[in-house]
Amino acid sequence: MNAISGISDNAYGYLAPNTIAPAGKLYIQDITLRDGLHAMQRRYTLEQVRQIAKALDKAKVDAIEISRGDGLSGSSFHSGFGDHTDWDWIAAAASVVKHARLSALLVPGIGTVHDLKRAHDMGVSSVRIATHCTEADVTKQHIEYARHLDMDVSGLLMMSHMTSPEALAQQAKLMEEYGAHCVYVADSCGMMTMNDVAARSIAYAQILKPETRFGIYAQHQLSLGVANSITAVQHGATRVDLSLAGVGAGAGNTPMEVFIAAADTYGYQHNINLSDLIVAAETLVRPWQNRVLYLDQNSLNAGSNGLHADFSHTAKEAAHNHGIDSHSILSELGRRQIIGGQIDMVTDVALELSKRSNQQVENNSTMSK
Amino acid sequence: MNAISGISDNAYGYLAPNTIAPAGKLYIQDITLRDGLHAMQRRYTLEQVRQIAKALDKAKVDAIEISRGDGLSGSSFHSGFGDHTDWDWIAAAASVVKHARLSALLVPGIGTVHDLKRAHDMGVSSVRIATHCTEADVTKQHIEYARHLDMDVSGLLMMSHMTSPEALAQQAKLMEEYGAHCVYVADSCGMMTMNDVAARSIAYAQILKPETRFGIYAQHQLSLGVANSITAVQHGATRVDLSLAGVGAGAGNTPMEVFIAAADTYGYQHNINLSDLIVAAETLVRPWQNRVLYLDQNSLNAGSNGLHADFSHTAKEAAHNHGIDSHSILSELGRRQIIGGQIDMVTDVALELSKRSNQQVENNSTMSK
Repeated sequence: MNAISGISDNAYGYLAPNTIAPAGKLYIQDITLRDGLHAMQRRYTLEQVRQIAKALDKAKVDAIEISRGDGLSGSSFHSGFGDHTDWDWIAAAASVVKHARLSALLVPGIGTVHDLKRAHDMGVSSVRIATHCTEADVTKQHIEYARHLDMDVSGLLMMSHMTSPEALAQQAKLMEEYGAHCVYVADSCGMMTMNDVAARSIAYAQILKPETRFGIYAQHQLSLGVANSITAVQHGATRVDLSLAGVGAGAGNTPMEVFIAAADTYGYQHNINLSDLIVAAETLVRPWQNRVLYLDQNSLNAGSNGLHADFSHTAKEAAHNHGIDSHSILSELGRRQIIGGQIDMVTDVALELSKRSNQQVENNSTMSK
Repeated sequence: MNAISGISDNAYGYLAPNTIAPAGKLYIQDITLRDGLHAMQRRYTLEQVRQIAKALDKAKVDAIEISRGDGLSGSSFHSGFGDHTDWDWIAAAASVVKHARLSALLVPGIGTVHDLKRAHDMGVSSVRIATHCTEADVTKQHIEYARHLDMDVSGLLMMSHMTSPEALAQQAKLMEEYGAHCVYVADSCGMMTMNDVAARSIAYAQILKPETRFGIYAQHQLSLGVANSITAVQHGATRVDLSLAGVGAGAGNTPMEVFIAAADTYGYQHNINLSDLIVAAETLVRPWQNRVLYLDQNSLNAGSNGLHADFSHTAKEAAHNHGIDSHSILSELGRRQIIGGQIDMVTDVALELSKRSNQQVENNSTMSK
C-alpha cells in the first residue's frame, strides 16, 4: 500500500516492476506561482497567491517558487507588469507557508544579485539561476552570491534542446563548479522526446559529481511532460518542476497532480498528499484559468521553430496589430534563433515584416502603372 | 523537411536520433466517433458525424471507427441509447468518406455476427473484436466470420494491465490463430506506465508471427497516452488508436493531433496532414465537448481500482441517487474485479451499499433504545 495516495500497489493488476528507481525521495518543486503566471497573464491577486501557497504547503510540496515567469524583476513593457510586485507576492506566500521552502527564479540580465538579497531577506531560501543553454558563464556571480547567502541554489539551462547532450552537460558542469547544488535540463519548448531527455540525463551523469543533484523542467506541449519527467527520474533526476493543473505557457507545464499519480504507479517515494493536490488543482487553479491548455497551431509553430511557447501569444497579438500572420513572425524569429529574454524582438520582426509587405504592395502598384 | 507537417527536421535543434523506427508507415485508427461518444454522452448528431468524418478523411486518417463506445448494438439502459442508431451513424459517415477505411467495434456478448454482417453491407470494411484480456476464446466465431466476409480484422484485449505480459500475449496468439490480422494492447484504464507497455509489446513480438500487426490503444488518464503509444511503436506497433482533442471517457484517449506532432519529432512516417487535424480538433470537437478532460479524483479512483474510466461517471450518478459516496462504490467494484461490460453492476453495488448503510443506522438506533 502506498501510504501517500492510499492506492494499493497491486490495484493495477499485473504491471511491470519499477525498473530504475531514484535513490530516496523525489523533491517536488512547484512552479504554479511563477511559470503559471504566463498562463494567467500575470494577474494573480495576493489572496490567490496565499490560497495556492497554503494548499501547496498542505499537500507537502518541497519548494514553492514565487516570482514572475521571467524571474525576479521580470516585469517589463513586453512581458507585462502584473498587478503586484515580486515582493508583494513573496510576502503573501511567506505569510502562509509553514513546511515548504520558498524559492525564486532569477535570470541574469533581468534580475540582479540585489534582487536575490532582497528575496533572501524576505524568507526565500532557495534560488534557481536560469540562463540560455549555452550561456552558463553569466550565472557565475549569481550562483556564488547565493552560496554566500547560504541558499540552496540550482542552475537551470533553458531551451536545453538547442545544444547537444554533451555540450549541455559541459554547461551544467560549469554551474556545478560555480557552486550549484543542482543542475537542470529545461525543455522550455516542450518539443523534446523521451530519447532526448534520456540522452541529456546520461550526459549529465557522466560528467557531474555524484553529490550534485539533477532536476527536470518539462513543458507539456506534446503531452510528454509527465513521460519526460519520469524518463529523467529513471536516469537519476530527483528534482521535478511541476505546476497545479499544468498551468503555464502554451500547452502548459507538467501537471503536478498527474505526475504524482504516475510516480505512484512507478512506486517512487515523495512527500506529497495526492488528494490535496487534486483538490487544489480543481478548486483553486482551474476556475481561474483563462484558457484551456492544449496543443494548438500557434504553440506548435512556436515549438517547431525552437521558440518558447510564450512567443506564440505575443506573436498572435503582434500579428493582429500589424496586419500580418503570426506564422510568418514565428518563422522569422526561429530563423534568427531568438531566445527567451528577447521577447521584444517580436514587435521588431512584426514591424519589419509589415514594412516589407507594404513595400511589396507599393512596388507592385508602381509596376502596374 | 517533413513533407507532412512542413516542419524542418533540424528545427528543434539538437535532438536525439529516432533510435527505433517502425518499418513503413503508421496506420492511424480514429476512435473519435466511437470511444469519443463516451465523453459526449452519446449525443452526436448525424450532421456532426458527417462533419467530423469528412474532416478526418481530409486529414488522411487510415481508418474511422463508427459505433457506440461499447461497440455495435452497445446501447442499453445502462450505457445509454444515443440519439441515433449505429446504422444511422454508419450511413452518415459512409456518405462523406472517400479515402479512409470505415471500421466498427464489436464486443462479443453485446454485438453479434448479424450486426457485423449489416455493418459490412453498409460499407464497413474493418472490424475490431474486443474482449476482456483473459477472454480471447469468445472472439473465435466473430473473427472467423469477419475473415469470411473478407474484412480487415483486429483482436483487441481490453484492460490489458489485468494480466501478465506473457498471459496477455497467449491471448493475442489465440486471436491470431482465429485469423486476426492485428492484435492490440488496450490500456482501458490509462494506468499503464511505459514499462508496462514495453513489457507487453516485447511479449507480443516473441510469440506472434512476423506478418501479424500489433496495435496500441492507450488512455490518457496519467497523460501518458502519447508516451505509451510512442513506446509501443518503438517496440513494433504500427496501428495506433487516437481521437481528436483526446475526446473519450475519463481523462480521455491519446489526442490524435498531439500524437502526430510527437510522431513527427520522432521522424515516424504516416499519411496524416497535421494542420488539418489541429483545425478539426479546434473547430469541430472542442466546441462540442461538454467537459474539459483531465485527471480528477473520480477517474483516478476508477483507474486505481482497475476500472474503466466510464465507471467513474456512472458511480458518481449512482452515489448521488442512493446517498452514498462514489469512492466506496468504486472500491467495492474494484474488489469484485468488475470488467467493461458489467456496468449495470454499479447500480447493484450502490443499492447494496446503501442498504447496508441503512441497516447500520437501524441497528445503531435499536441498540441505543
